[in-house]
Amino acid sequence: MADRDLVRLGRFPERGSHEFAAIAAILDEALVCHVGVSVRGQPVVLPTTFARRDRHLYIHGSTVARWMGALTSAPLCLTVSILDAIVLARSAYNHTLNYRSVVVFGQAERVTDAQERRRALEAIVEHVCPGRSSDTRPPSAKELKATSVLRIDLATASAKTREGPPVDFDEDYGKGIWAGVIPVRTVRGTPIPDARLEAGVGLPYYLGR
Amino acid sequence: MADRDLVRLGRFPERGSHEFAAIAAILDEALVCHVGVSVRGQPVVLPTTFARRDRHLYIHGSTVARWMGALTSAPLCLTVSILDAIVLARSAYNHTLNYRSVVVFGQAERVTDAQERRRALEAIVEHVCPGRSSDTRPPSAKELKATSVLRIDLATASAKTREGPPVDFDEDYGKGIWAGVIPVRTVRGTPIPDARLEAGVGLPYYLGR
Repeated sequence: MADRDLVRLGRFPERGSHEFAAIAAILDEALVCHVGVSVRGQPVVLPTTFARRDRHLYIHGSTVARWMGALTSAPLCLTVSILDAIVLARSAYNHTLNYRSVVVFGQAERVTDAQERRRALEAIVEHVCPGRSSDTRPPSAKELKATSVLRIDLATASAKTREGPPVDFDEDYGKGIWAGVIPVRTVRGTPIPDARLEAGVGLPYYLGR
Repeated sequence: MADRDLVRLGRFPERGSHEFAAIAAILDEALVCHVGVSVRGQPVVLPTTFARRDRHLYIHGSTVARWMGALTSAPLCLTVSILDAIVLARSAYNHTLNYRSVVVFGQAERVTDAQERRRALEAIVEHVCPGRSSDTRPPSAKELKATSVLRIDLATASAKTREGPPVDFDEDYGKGIWAGVIPVRTVRGTPIPDARLEAGVGLPYYLGR
């Protein structure tokens, strides 16, 4: 699966990395990935949650979703991007974004092993909310039966990042144009308890940080 | 181009909308889209900036980028997603995300009209930073020549959203499990001036909000 040509970096190869630690860190921070697959010649890109376990990613969905079927019958591309900043250069041309992204090429495999399926679903809950998976009612046999779990190998993955200040052409400095970076962050707000929560059920420790 | 089958909503059709105002609002808020296209049978999904002008989206890139060539020679899918909340249900199965997403199917067309190209590039700068396009050195003839501008018709677009509290099965209420919503927001931080900024160049008004 490690098709070097597929992950050959195009523009700005100096921004790229095939180093696993860099790839894993970006995947672990992002909450949502965008998965693309071709359905009868038409690419379809949908956002979904996911989780990484070692050298694999897991995604899940309903067994009756057309999407799940498409993903196991053709090559896919799974992309994660984290926006870090808007970079305002002196020229419109040199405006850019600071970001960290990962692109994974591969083929999704349906996970059939019961233990691997449970662990993958737990990992997806943990990925969006660390500490949560042991504080929720676990999936029933019926729920597990209604859920497809897909595994994607990270062998053909690459990371690409841009960081730092704007880079302008020499002739654009000294013109009195403001330039700099506007940081962008994804933040979690104060948890909002469900209106039907029973009295006395306090905020769990893992949400109290 | 308005292929109704392509934008037929699959799972949870009650979360979908073909209403243009809803689609435009989501597109205008998101800073990054993910564009998927098939390259020799392999889907490739990459994040990029964009802008909407009326019923079209514009994206841009280097004329020498392989990516730009691929986008004009095959159908594409352009997807935008905004994450609004992590939804913690009483059961692992009913955990979900609140989000707003738009999926656009279409074919990118290379824009050749000089005025439309300029306006599209301005719109992309304005999209990430309103007010900025008139306060930066505009593109030179050489820079314009090095830039591909692509237009994508919004005729085949649909929006999908999930909002509100967790929805649990009747038997899961009353078990003392905390449930609720963790809001997620994308926020812009304090602008960081470039180290090479001349003395006396203050923060522009459009960044002072």
